[in-house]
Amino acid sequence: MKRRLFFKRGLLASIGTAMAPSFSLLGNTLKNQGKAKNVIFMVSDGMSMGTLSMADLLHRRKNDTPSTWVSLYQQGKVARAIMDTASANSIVTDSAAAGSSWGGGMRVNNGAINVGPMGEKPMPILQKFKNAGKSVGCVTTVPVTHATPASFCVNVPDRNDQAGIAEEYLKLRFDLWLGGGAKYFDSQKRTDGKDMFGQFAAAGYQVVKDKDALKKLNPGSGPVLGTFAEDALPYTIDRNNQQLLGDQVPSLAEMTQKAIGLLGTNDRGFMLQVEGGKVDWAAHGNDTPALLYDQLDFDEAVKVAMDFAEQDGETLVIITTDHGNGEPGVFYGDKADDNFDSLLGVGCSNEWVLNQIDSNFSPKQVIELLDVHQQVRLAVPEARLILDKYQNLEKTGLYNPRKLPFELLATYQERDFSVHWANNEHSGVFVELSVFGPGSDKLPGMMENYKLHDFILETAEI
Amino acid sequence: MKRRLFFKRGLLASIGTAMAPSFSLLGNTLKNQGKAKNVIFMVSDGMSMGTLSMADLLHRRKNDTPSTWVSLYQQGKVARAIMDTASANSIVTDSAAAGSSWGGGMRVNNGAINVGPMGEKPMPILQKFKNAGKSVGCVTTVPVTHATPASFCVNVPDRNDQAGIAEEYLKLRFDLWLGGGAKYFDSQKRTDGKDMFGQFAAAGYQVVKDKDALKKLNPGSGPVLGTFAEDALPYTIDRNNQQLLGDQVPSLAEMTQKAIGLLGTNDRGFMLQVEGGKVDWAAHGNDTPALLYDQLDFDEAVKVAMDFAEQDGETLVIITTDHGNGEPGVFYGDKADDNFDSLLGVGCSNEWVLNQIDSNFSPKQVIELLDVHQQVRLAVPEARLILDKYQNLEKTGLYNPRKLPFELLATYQERDFSVHWANNEHSGVFVELSVFGPGSDKLPGMMENYKLHDFILETAEI
Repeated sequence: MKRRLFFKRGLLASIGTAMAPSFSLLGNTLKNQGKAKNVIFMVSDGMSMGTLSMADLLHRRKNDTPSTWVSLYQQGKVARAIMDTASANSIVTDSAAAGSSWGGGMRVNNGAINVGPMGEKPMPILQKFKNAGKSVGCVTTVPVTHATPASFCVNVPDRNDQAGIAEEYLKLRFDLWLGGGAKYFDSQKRTDGKDMFGQFAAAGYQVVKDKDALKKLNPGSGPVLGTFAEDALPYTIDRNNQQLLGDQVPSLAEMTQKAIGLLGTNDRGFMLQVEGGKVDWAAHGNDTPALLYDQLDFDEAVKVAMDFAEQDGETLVIITTDHGNGEPGVFYGDKADDNFDSLLGVGCSNEWVLNQIDSNFSPKQVIELLDVHQQVRLAVPEARLILDKYQNLEKTGLYNPRKLPFELLATYQERDFSVHWANNEHSGVFVELSVFGPGSDKLPGMMENYKLHDFILETAEI
Repeated sequence: MKRRLFFKRGLLASIGTAMAPSFSLLGNTLKNQGKAKNVIFMVSDGMSMGTLSMADLLHRRKNDTPSTWVSLYQQGKVARAIMDTASANSIVTDSAAAGSSWGGGMRVNNGAINVGPMGEKPMPILQKFKNAGKSVGCVTTVPVTHATPASFCVNVPDRNDQAGIAEEYLKLRFDLWLGGGAKYFDSQKRTDGKDMFGQFAAAGYQVVKDKDALKKLNPGSGPVLGTFAEDALPYTIDRNNQQLLGDQVPSLAEMTQKAIGLLGTNDRGFMLQVEGGKVDWAAHGNDTPALLYDQLDFDEAVKVAMDFAEQDGETLVIITTDHGNGEPGVFYGDKADDNFDSLLGVGCSNEWVLNQIDSNFSPKQVIELLDVHQQVRLAVPEARLILDKYQNLEKTGLYNPRKLPFELLATYQERDFSVHWANNEHSGVFVELSVFGPGSDKLPGMMENYKLHDFILETAEI
């Protein structure tokens, strides 16, 4: 277990802890009509109802209080709708088409970013807000060039062209991107060798790469490009339990807090997109520990946004997801409660623990690893089946998450957590849409995703 | 294929067809405040969000119009909440405890009907309404003595005592029960030989056993006990495609229409519970065709209730479910749209088709059976694996649905329908709660199930 990078440091300490300064709530009736000066658009990517539900349950089992998102329902602070997430060419969308429906106001084919089936190129919403004199930016836990943030910024035929998206970003002169994806800006990592970090710096951007540098940023020091990992940021559960990651990488709430502080100085207002992007990645891996703690990380960012919006009174906050993924749930059984509660003691993601395994591990080592880090108990034949999957793994790339035996581990974990998954792909099931602030009085109970684009523009009077 | 009872007669004819007379909508603002004279409580038992979502999608793919339930959201006619469905002893409820939370206003342990952990016996809500001079009744597609209707009527320690529940019902002198469960009233089927049908008739009840007799009932002819099957009613998809079943068994909408007609003559008002009970049974069998058409059958009953309530103006309509089940969904893939659309051509439930198979079938016969009735194509080894499950089946009872290879067939159907299931049990995932009419202005965005009891009593001022 030589690769072990596991330091218990206040396990779960961050759950339920507000990252934001404590704004006081408005004493008067919450404003749900009129014009929005600011817009904060929050996306927990790939969040099925079961994800929202289980994260709230985990929060309540730990703290006896609901998650922020669910508390907004309890307190009647937000309007609620179900959202139909289809794309132009399928009843089941990908994140590019889903984001484009919001960003460009029309449905496009899966894989495209604001390029329609007939070649249409609707102007992305952050460009419209920028043109109206507002500050604009994106915050995410995946690369800043990934589908969801990109769909609010650019028109690109193929979401996979993240290096190209980085170049498009430079032209836009937006005010802020915070997240992962350093490799799309780093001359050493880009296949074309272009030094995008250098070009952003030359264009006046503050380029930051760790949590401390982020903290030091002040309004007035210019636009910001912050990338805190080569690709996506680590999962929250791993960041919380590994000192090195915790020192380097900010939480989504910390990035959101800083972004609001920087963009919020513009008297003409701002629009900020905030994405919990790794909720989707965790669902693709049926990685229950990663999923629930990243959903709670997103929930803390919701609290930051809501604290600001409740004090501000002129901010429209949209809290939603682009599509379901995996349709997980906690299921009936004699030990369902105890099993689910055991997730409170899990210390790492499935991704992290599976990456510790070598093909030359013994079954006993695999069993010990899972027991120590996740209190998941495997039988010897099960450990052997997991090890079998590593026989050809070294050739195809050990650190490619898609090659790790995620589904097998998730199947074994069913008896530990009482959590089951329907699949490891996006679903076409209706999703949650919550709206706070000006305009929320006009939200219908069911909305097609693309209609949100005009809803925002009308509320902001742009 | 000698057991074939399969007559195509207007496949899917019932989808999108209103069973109710066409009431005109109110031209003025819908009433969402004040006192409710009548209450209609509608339960699609065991309905995960994926079930609501896929049934709506199937309706739209067929008719280009949304399901009734979703159209209520689109038109802004109902208030919406998520509901927490836990029981007293688990984060995942059963139908008895879930129904009791509504019926008795307190959480009880799984398996109990309005008998609390400390032996509490809260008065069930329909007794309260009856005592207030209102007419009361239950309509369901499962036995009228099953957990959900019983939880609105009686206090019983064990939900499985359906024969005892039938006797309790007689004491209550309620106005109406319509559904299945003849075997709990029939002296030939009850182990104690009691003739409950006779006792109900002697007490002044109209006892009816088929659709024609139901149709002939008129207000003023006394209370009604209607049982249209020995146990649960057949699935909607089978009733729609088999002449004999269609002639004998009313739809949930037809029963609901009749129930409202009978109960609605009381000047002091009524309370009616309507349950789509086999949505839950289909989910337990991962029986996608049965699930979606029974959900649409429930949706037609929603239309009947809403048509009445919109014209009446004094009726509170609650539309919800008691818990999730299976967390199914339609999932991403190149052929997702075509696969899902193939459900429009399926002619029977998985339960029905699996009941046609004998252990002496050849693999070829199994393949032909699935192809003809469901357009599901199996490979020979798959057909063999299904047949393997029948080897010991005759001994344990062929017609016990729990012994049939439901899960195996559902797994094969994933590539045909693009529908996947997380499990075949209840989930603890939040569920939908929709409220129409007086009192809906007071619905919070999130509600624990047991609070609905007082919500109803307060709205009805009882």
